[in-house]
Amino acid sequence: MEITAINNPQVKEIVKLQQKKYRDSENKFLLEGYKSLWEAHLAGVTIEKVFVLKQKAQQYSFVKEKLILTNEAVLKKISTTESSPDAVGVAIQKHYNIDDIKSAQKVVLLENIKDLGNLGTILRTATAFNFDGIILYGDCADLYNPKCVRASVGNLWKIPVINIKDFDELKKAFSSYTRVATLPRAKKMLKDFKPEFPALIMFGSEADGLSEELINFSTDSIKIEMNENVESLNLSVSCAVVLYKMFGV
Amino acid sequence: MEITAINNPQVKEIVKLQQKKYRDSENKFLLEGYKSLWEAHLAGVTIEKVFVLKQKAQQYSFVKEKLILTNEAVLKKISTTESSPDAVGVAIQKHYNIDDIKSAQKVVLLENIKDLGNLGTILRTATAFNFDGIILYGDCADLYNPKCVRASVGNLWKIPVINIKDFDELKKAFSSYTRVATLPRAKKMLKDFKPEFPALIMFGSEADGLSEELINFSTDSIKIEMNENVESLNLSVSCAVVLYKMFGV
Repeated sequence: MEITAINNPQVKEIVKLQQKKYRDSENKFLLEGYKSLWEAHLAGVTIEKVFVLKQKAQQYSFVKEKLILTNEAVLKKISTTESSPDAVGVAIQKHYNIDDIKSAQKVVLLENIKDLGNLGTILRTATAFNFDGIILYGDCADLYNPKCVRASVGNLWKIPVINIKDFDELKKAFSSYTRVATLPRAKKMLKDFKPEFPALIMFGSEADGLSEELINFSTDSIKIEMNENVESLNLSVSCAVVLYKMFGV
Repeated sequence: MEITAINNPQVKEIVKLQQKKYRDSENKFLLEGYKSLWEAHLAGVTIEKVFVLKQKAQQYSFVKEKLILTNEAVLKKISTTESSPDAVGVAIQKHYNIDDIKSAQKVVLLENIKDLGNLGTILRTATAFNFDGIILYGDCADLYNPKCVRASVGNLWKIPVINIKDFDELKKAFSSYTRVATLPRAKKMLKDFKPEFPALIMFGSEADGLSEELINFSTDSIKIEMNENVESLNLSVSCAVVLYKMFGV
């Protein structure tokens, strides 16, 4: 198939997926560029269709039944980046629930995280350091926002990510876990931290830190050693340092 | 003083500083919001003037001789963020040269780094973990770009950052250092790494990694242990993990 008109209904449908409202109602999201499409394909994500630059179609033979040949004007219209990629695909969102991580040993919790770059980066880091799942607690940014998909660099779908809004649900699921709050005012230093498993490692947003509710819920708290001259670290940096420390232990 | 017209020459002058060309020729840069201005003030950065929302002027008494009272329209015009801050200041760039780090024990080198968020974040991390300086090698992004200033969260001016374009200059300055390349194909794992000082820790860009030139220049190489299912980490994440490992040793 070939579509080269920017007012084609299928083109318009894809543009709508740039908005959360439509991603939610359609249960779909956008995959932009070779790497995202390839990693999603490898991970078994259902790819519905792929608009591809006619002259680059050959590279996308792994989704050859899904290809729609197109031109640069259409790709510019449907992509969310300044320099448009060679291909933009539509895929089905993968949803998990708490049962998917019931035997998890290492889980990260992020509370009210808003920064899409951080969210995608933390997914990439948590996957790299063998975490079994991620809890998005409270009012977090949308995982399927194109900016988050990009920042995850193909690691959005390798481990379960579960939205939990309700404290009682959280309490029930993790009552038997060691629950570690990462806090600037914690007494224990990261270097002295010997985690016991299963463990839930909790991080608050850059703006507000962890809520009192989650601090009270924690069984342990740690802080990262640093120069006093620096107030705090970037959230994905804090996560990286703590998660690496728990890798392979 | 009060300026409320968006076509005022001083307003136009500030807008120009959003562009690298003018930042370079004027040797100035923008400080947006309370935190940036306060941290710059504490660090002794020369602040030339500060446009501030009239009703918020009181909070900025630490630069009271520099204040220009203004309105939201002007702040929207001169700021680079979607939601404009209460104040935007003009400050003088601080320049360092290689002599400023001649007794440095721990130095980070970044080669051809382009991502402004990563650059600012790495500055914040390197300062937090007591590094003595940063080398921007080759063709790096502009430190004084507002996006980098923001990502550094007030840590742009606490340790020397030095631009080096020339390999011979680099060679001369660091010939006596342990020179560590961080590489996915390195044989030594980070956990087994016992750094000897003084040390230069080198990172390539996310897109291209380290150049052959710098790999050949290295005396040691390390990689971060991770799940094979993940190709690589975000650059500021890799830096964080390695720099933390070297903190306090």
